[in-house]
Amino acid sequence: MITHGVHSEVGRLRKVLVCAPGLAHERLTPSTSDALLFDDVLWVRAAQQDHADFVAQLTDRGVEVVELLDLLTETMAQPEARRWLLERTIEANTVGLGLVADTLAFLDTLPARDVAEYLIGGLATSDLPGEFRPAYLALAEVGGPRAEYLLPPLPNMLYTRDTTSWLYGGLTLNPLYWPARRGETLLMKAIYSFHPDFSADRIWWGDPELDWRQATLEGGDVMPVGDGVVLLGMGERTSRQAITQLTRVLFDAGAARQVVVAGMPKLRAAMHLDTVFTFADRDVVTVYPAIMDGVRTFSLYPCETAPGLEVRDEGVGSFVDVVARAMGLPALRVIETGGDAYASERQQWDSGNNAVAVEPGVVFTYDRNTVTNALLRDAGIQVIEIRGAELGRGRGGGHCMTCPIARDPLPG
Amino acid sequence: MITHGVHSEVGRLRKVLVCAPGLAHERLTPSTSDALLFDDVLWVRAAQQDHADFVAQLTDRGVEVVELLDLLTETMAQPEARRWLLERTIEANTVGLGLVADTLAFLDTLPARDVAEYLIGGLATSDLPGEFRPAYLALAEVGGPRAEYLLPPLPNMLYTRDTTSWLYGGLTLNPLYWPARRGETLLMKAIYSFHPDFSADRIWWGDPELDWRQATLEGGDVMPVGDGVVLLGMGERTSRQAITQLTRVLFDAGAARQVVVAGMPKLRAAMHLDTVFTFADRDVVTVYPAIMDGVRTFSLYPCETAPGLEVRDEGVGSFVDVVARAMGLPALRVIETGGDAYASERQQWDSGNNAVAVEPGVVFTYDRNTVTNALLRDAGIQVIEIRGAELGRGRGGGHCMTCPIARDPLPG
Amino acid sequence: MITHGVHSEVGRLRKVLVCAPGLAHERLTPSTSDALLFDDVLWVRAAQQDHADFVAQLTDRGVEVVELLDLLTETMAQPEARRWLLERTIEANTVGLGLVADTLAFLDTLPARDVAEYLIGGLATSDLPGEFRPAYLALAEVGGPRAEYLLPPLPNMLYTRDTTSWLYGGLTLNPLYWPARRGETLLMKAIYSFHPDFSADRIWWGDPELDWRQATLEGGDVMPVGDGVVLLGMGERTSRQAITQLTRVLFDAGAARQVVVAGMPKLRAAMHLDTVFTFADRDVVTVYPAIMDGVRTFSLYPCETAPGLEVRDEGVGSFVDVVARAMGLPALRVIETGGDAYASERQQWDSGNNAVAVEPGVVFTYDRNTVTNALLRDAGIQVIEIRGAELGRGRGGGHCMTCPIARDPLPG
Amino acid sequence: MITHGVHSEVGRLRKVLVCAPGLAHERLTPSTSDALLFDDVLWVRAAQQDHADFVAQLTDRGVEVVELLDLLTETMAQPEARRWLLERTIEANTVGLGLVADTLAFLDTLPARDVAEYLIGGLATSDLPGEFRPAYLALAEVGGPRAEYLLPPLPNMLYTRDTTSWLYGGLTLNPLYWPARRGETLLMKAIYSFHPDFSADRIWWGDPELDWRQATLEGGDVMPVGDGVVLLGMGERTSRQAITQLTRVLFDAGAARQVVVAGMPKLRAAMHLDTVFTFADRDVVTVYPAIMDGVRTFSLYPCETAPGLEVRDEGVGSFVDVVARAMGLPALRVIETGGDAYASERQQWDSGNNAVAVEPGVVFTYDRNTVTNALLRDAGIQVIEIRGAELGRGRGGGHCMTCPIARDPLPG
Repeated sequence: MITHGVHSEVGRLRKVLVCAPGLAHERLTPSTSDALLFDDVLWVRAAQQDHADFVAQLTDRGVEVVELLDLLTETMAQPEARRWLLERTIEANTVGLGLVADTLAFLDTLPARDVAEYLIGGLATSDLPGEFRPAYLALAEVGGPRAEYLLPPLPNMLYTRDTTSWLYGGLTLNPLYWPARRGETLLMKAIYSFHPDFSADRIWWGDPELDWRQATLEGGDVMPVGDGVVLLGMGERTSRQAITQLTRVLFDAGAARQVVVAGMPKLRAAMHLDTVFTFADRDVVTVYPAIMDGVRTFSLYPCETAPGLEVRDEGVGSFVDVVARAMGLPALRVIETGGDAYASERQQWDSGNNAVAVEPGVVFTYDRNTVTNALLRDAGIQVIEIRGAELGRGRGGGHCMTCPIARDPLPG
Repeated sequence: MITHGVHSEVGRLRKVLVCAPGLAHERLTPSTSDALLFDDVLWVRAAQQDHADFVAQLTDRGVEVVELLDLLTETMAQPEARRWLLERTIEANTVGLGLVADTLAFLDTLPARDVAEYLIGGLATSDLPGEFRPAYLALAEVGGPRAEYLLPPLPNMLYTRDTTSWLYGGLTLNPLYWPARRGETLLMKAIYSFHPDFSADRIWWGDPELDWRQATLEGGDVMPVGDGVVLLGMGERTSRQAITQLTRVLFDAGAARQVVVAGMPKLRAAMHLDTVFTFADRDVVTVYPAIMDGVRTFSLYPCETAPGLEVRDEGVGSFVDVVARAMGLPALRVIETGGDAYASERQQWDSGNNAVAVEPGVVFTYDRNTVTNALLRDAGIQVIEIRGAELGRGRGGGHCMTCPIARDPLPG
Repeated sequence: MITHGVHSEVGRLRKVLVCAPGLAHERLTPSTSDALLFDDVLWVRAAQQDHADFVAQLTDRGVEVVELLDLLTETMAQPEARRWLLERTIEANTVGLGLVADTLAFLDTLPARDVAEYLIGGLATSDLPGEFRPAYLALAEVGGPRAEYLLPPLPNMLYTRDTTSWLYGGLTLNPLYWPARRGETLLMKAIYSFHPDFSADRIWWGDPELDWRQATLEGGDVMPVGDGVVLLGMGERTSRQAITQLTRVLFDAGAARQVVVAGMPKLRAAMHLDTVFTFADRDVVTVYPAIMDGVRTFSLYPCETAPGLEVRDEGVGSFVDVVARAMGLPALRVIETGGDAYASERQQWDSGNNAVAVEPGVVFTYDRNTVTNALLRDAGIQVIEIRGAELGRGRGGGHCMTCPIARDPLPG
Repeated sequence: MITHGVHSEVGRLRKVLVCAPGLAHERLTPSTSDALLFDDVLWVRAAQQDHADFVAQLTDRGVEVVELLDLLTETMAQPEARRWLLERTIEANTVGLGLVADTLAFLDTLPARDVAEYLIGGLATSDLPGEFRPAYLALAEVGGPRAEYLLPPLPNMLYTRDTTSWLYGGLTLNPLYWPARRGETLLMKAIYSFHPDFSADRIWWGDPELDWRQATLEGGDVMPVGDGVVLLGMGERTSRQAITQLTRVLFDAGAARQVVVAGMPKLRAAMHLDTVFTFADRDVVTVYPAIMDGVRTFSLYPCETAPGLEVRDEGVGSFVDVVARAMGLPALRVIETGGDAYASERQQWDSGNNAVAVEPGVVFTYDRNTVTNALLRDAGIQVIEIRGAELGRGRGGGHCMTCPIARDPLPG
């Protein structure tokens, strides 16, 4: 088996976690999609085909692709794991006092795969069959049959990048920013606690059973670029409270020697660092200048005195240079989101800066980022296209849809 | 040449006006699309291919398809027409006092097709070349180079259904509801005034050079179902002020004998009657019950005394029955937007009720309306699919994208 | 009678137009106030008392205060004027074809004051008594008895500053930005056309019976500071299209020699120039730096060649200096909105920069602007307070609530 | 000392908890007030006077009024309590790793009252004096000096009703719905744990140190009407998950014998039961029919089998009758929010249904609810008015601003 660990952003990708569209996306409607962080409903069958093509191309390139629904199914097949997870999701505070017993009883009748599907896709009150519908259900259906979920749908699991983050030899279980996504991390903890392929992995930081308050972290803001350097976006989703805690853990473990923080504005257009900045080769990055030009950069270093880290303010507009210096490169080659003012804003919105590399100089992007893709090719990058018409409606691209579990260091 | 006139909703379609995606859609960005009534940016090249396929299939079925950009180009090739239209669009109230002369001078250098493209696609201040950039331009660029248009983009011309409406032997030049769309009707007036194929056509009502205030009408609310009966949706976009005026004109001309009004709630989900109710065959309709069940129906009939029309309140929930009776049918067969509560809301949003017929029992719909399409096929309707991933992002389907100019009556 | 004409911002105020709160404000509800541009409902009786106190203090200081409702009543008492105005407001495009006759018949039964009250306060369908309720009314009441107005309420007439603007020896009839306010200007045209005290006044520009498209102007952006200099704010409400037209008229008439334009961002916090910049004395201004520091300034001068005006770009941050120079002053003394970052933003929101002078150095402001008022007093300004708890809920202060009709030049 | 316990909604009020406006309200700005659940900024000094008058009138009527800031000051004067609370509020997840030590050191220099003021009013990064400003602070001030709080302001503590709820002989520590309010309950736990006047009181349910997920409860939805009957609103803020848990605890303790649940729509206009329904006398209630007519009612009774409560669906429109029957009354006299459709919506918005009784038939309401107040007086109720111009801007009235701690049963 491949040893888990992510040692760069563009070294050879060995193993990656994805989550295909499914039941959770069937739940999206025009009146609920905003609350579930999607800009529009999507055609699930077409999205599934586009996702399957993406996976097939990763596989063709020698990447081992693991599907979250499969992992969760295998985990739920273990009685101990199933009990552990259902105790934590089906309880008086979630399904409600009078519905715990019947909901558990209904789930007991189901095979592991169906349980896993409901855990990701959501369990509507209307999903309970007649024999499991107690009188209490009327309280949950005051606003109609779709009024409440017993388990909420988690359509953003499609973007596996955010929920857990491998940083060199260990990973984080991320406290996500939006309440609508918080359930994702508990599912990942179940897998990392009970699935035989993952239960020995090292957790750096994060535990979905604790209350992290302002300390939120999302993987789209996390980039282990190699050689003990980590880039972290700080903005709407990832806070300084999480950044400083994680940094200290990495410094204490000797897993990192410098953390470069990109202080971004709190805007949806800059929701994660990987929506405005990604690597395409060891020294090639895509950049959305409308945001990146205003970023304020900080470097964090280990220090002896409490709390164990030192902050250096690197000023505004220096991010790319600071990153190059930290990585020991003379400079980074920068590819800006392409086209005129209209095209640039449109390309960024359509995840034009959200490339994911399978090896140095070979990246996946959406087909609709035509202008940016042409610029990448001009720079010598090999670009493989993913159909983005449906998959992109939650505002995520190839980088967001992949959580690397094993990736090589940069070649020497 | 085919005689213009639309005598039913499902009789054989002879000639239709469309408007392919283009420059106006290149202007859509995440920060401007709302103001331009689009829910998301779209990939213009893919949208153009999907639109071209739609047009090809219409042509294959014997329909003469005329493209608005071509008509406007042919119109702008006539000096008199060009002068007439530019006088009305390039003036002190629009481009601004100090920019009129230079903007006109720039357009004078262009062939008719380019002028037509800017009239539909919008003219940004950054489109003016150096020799046509007077000092006044600085006033227009306070908020940056994209801050203002000299001519606004009209991306909703894609939905030609709304701007003009053929009703039996004449047409209306519609006062549209949203200011962002009002420029469309003046372009159509130029065509109907100057283009040789159209200049003899009869205008029932509407003139974009007048101020109609609350009297707004959009073609998505207009259905001449045959035999002197007209259905009109009344809601967010089409007002009773327009409905009563148009009805009197039709009654006075003897062009209609009964108008059935669907009083809808003012919601985006019910923005036009054709988003919740369309014909698929002479007695088959698709219906979105979540809206249509609450519609209050009125019948309007001619009367002798001023103002020449009589109102009969038909109550709530009776729309389909009143329409059947008006058309002399025992009943309409109703196909409801398909699937469970989630699927039904999703299908309607994706224009599942927006079918357009080329002949009785043969309709175009979006590919993504899989559930509704299956129900239509079960009912014996032949369904031809249009790719909707891009075209549907402005919330319109095949019915919205077509303005019939010649359609036969229902076969006897 | 006092000769009309406004020759400065702070010279002695002789005559002013106001409009007390009334029926229009009784129509504001939490669900409609946004559309009517109010942030909250207000307690009308208390607002009326506060407004009456403000008027009493103006009167005590020798200002002749004319109330708009009185002027409109006197105008409506003339049969010719009444016919002129009702023909333009009660017609097929507004009340609807089947309701014109009955609505006019109902208004015919009323004294002039009641007609004037409905013209400002709005006429709801539920206001029509039984004998004037034809069957057509059902079309207007589909969404309930409050669904539609026959005449819209005009609660923003409270802010008389915006609708008409005296500039030296003549005035403008302003095309207002928001459709919800456009009806105001027609009422003012009726008064200036028919009321004996106003019908001889000179109109520089503007006519509510024409369509001005992008050329919108609101009086809160208009300041005749004296000696042929005019300040104009350019932003959300007042456009360059209006500014250039008005400027040319003033230059052609010899009424102005320099116009200074403040190019503001299009934000509600900067909705008019007088929300971020007003005069308190001949050389003292209140300024909200968070906005004014980013303003781009232009000077407009007469020139011989078409279109008769020259634009000079004065750059960013120079507004106060350019104004001082234009006025022939060595400098303006600047009082910034007071307090820390929280207090400053709060004071500006509560109209802290919206002072109106009755003579040099004597201004009215809201009582709640305690910090800014203290700074004004420290600078030697006499501050008279208006209770703002209710009046300020539409985001306007003393400057907005007053339309000077006669004001002296600055003392020599 | 008065024995704590609340045995009715209108029995004689003996002791009540309030929280005057203060520092937290100085933090409200137009750009932050929405996030802090206020519709507008308020004039704090005026609000304080109005609140002081309200308190004085309560005191005059023999009620012991305790001020939350005083209680918290007295609690913070105890070193153990101070340590307990600061450990839980100043930690790596809230102020951030590098700021914990300095923030604690700064607070150590302050007297108990100042600490209490910051705990309620919020601690801005700009509040830290120079000697307590480490380099880490730069991370918190990327978006400017007001970008982040070290402790969030809690302006909704003004509405003490919501945070804790006395129900007969014990109280609840409520898990509040909006994250912006969650900090309130921890302050109350500190008081109930450490303050000598409160530390012996009995807690029925709730603990701010646990994660209650969907189980949220706010006191505006809680009414112990007497004789073992409790009314609970279920809507936006209070969930069935909380209702069923609390009900079982009360049944198990024998503290209640019937709970009547009002199933309300999830609308801001119906944010709590006490915004649409309150008691003015033992058999007199104010009701906002636009909401209450659609409420679905449930009765909960103890039962032997798990989970210890039985649900009876009482249907739509029956709430007032079910309540009367539960209280053993032949009927309740209903006073509807007064006036026409406009006035009724306005009065409700201005807390017209939010009366609080000091004894049977004697209530406090806002002065601006003139129509409803007149109806109450017509029904024989004595109405004492509170000035609401400032206090009402967070959408709460007298009932919201009072948390009864001791109230008599209804007189026999």
